[in-house]
Amino acid sequence: MSVFTKIIKGEIPSYKIAESDDFYAFLDIFPLVKGHTLIVPKMEVDKFFDVTDDLLGEWLLFAKPIARSIERAFPCNRVGVSVVGLEVPHAHMHLIPINTADDMNFSRPKLKLSEEEFRAIQGQIIAGLAR
Amino acid sequence: MSVFTKIIKGEIPSYKIAESDDFYAFLDIFPLVKGHTLIVPKMEVDKFFDVTDDLLGEWLLFAKPIARSIERAFPCNRVGVSVVGLEVPHAHMHLIPINTADDMNFSRPKLKLSEEEFRAIQGQIIAGLAR
Repeated sequence: MSVFTKIIKGEIPSYKIAESDDFYAFLDIFPLVKGHTLIVPKMEVDKFFDVTDDLLGEWLLFAKPIARSIERAFPCNRVGVSVVGLEVPHAHMHLIPINTADDMNFSRPKLKLSEEEFRAIQGQIIAGLAR
Repeated sequence: MSVFTKIIKGEIPSYKIAESDDFYAFLDIFPLVKGHTLIVPKMEVDKFFDVTDDLLGEWLLFAKPIARSIERAFPCNRVGVSVVGLEVPHAHMHLIPINTADDMNFSRPKLKLSEEEFRAIQGQIIAGLAR
């Protein structure tokens, strides 16, 4: 069982942002910038393009309101999207508020945030989903 | 008119990979690695999540066979996906065959390929689409 499946099942705690029948969104605990969010399908598949066509068709529509809320909550030019997938064998998409391309450079050191900071970011993004 | 619209209209030449009513795929002429491909909607919209829901729903399904062909043609762990969009105000998605996260680092110098090399890459990816 992947670490993301454990998160989806609640066996590992997460800063949850949103959930549907097919997807689960939560804060990346190794964020490149504040607001960095992950979207994973509940079905555990390693490679992104190996998920079902139904999920590929739904994925960006599930992501859209979350990306819009992130964009409103954090000063940024726009929200970037990245699918890498070399570390956890469970397909996932990064949503990252960016001002420069380097904000999406995964070779950079990650931010270290406190639980209070994560809770504040989670609250801001969830609040924006209602708008 | 964006540089991508000029490419779609044929006013600027490109190494075309595939086309549908709504999307156009072609080789990035500033590739991070060999096989680096761009997918753009024919409708000119600046920000990725501002394209219509219909296009968001179709986008990854249009990308899938292209990503699979790239993955077969170039030695890689998998094909990564990236949407940045800070340079050209016409939404576009990068498909990049990757072995390390640094293969998707846009701060790196780009490859300089000859026309012959681009033509060979184009031919390999198009040939793989038929499989």
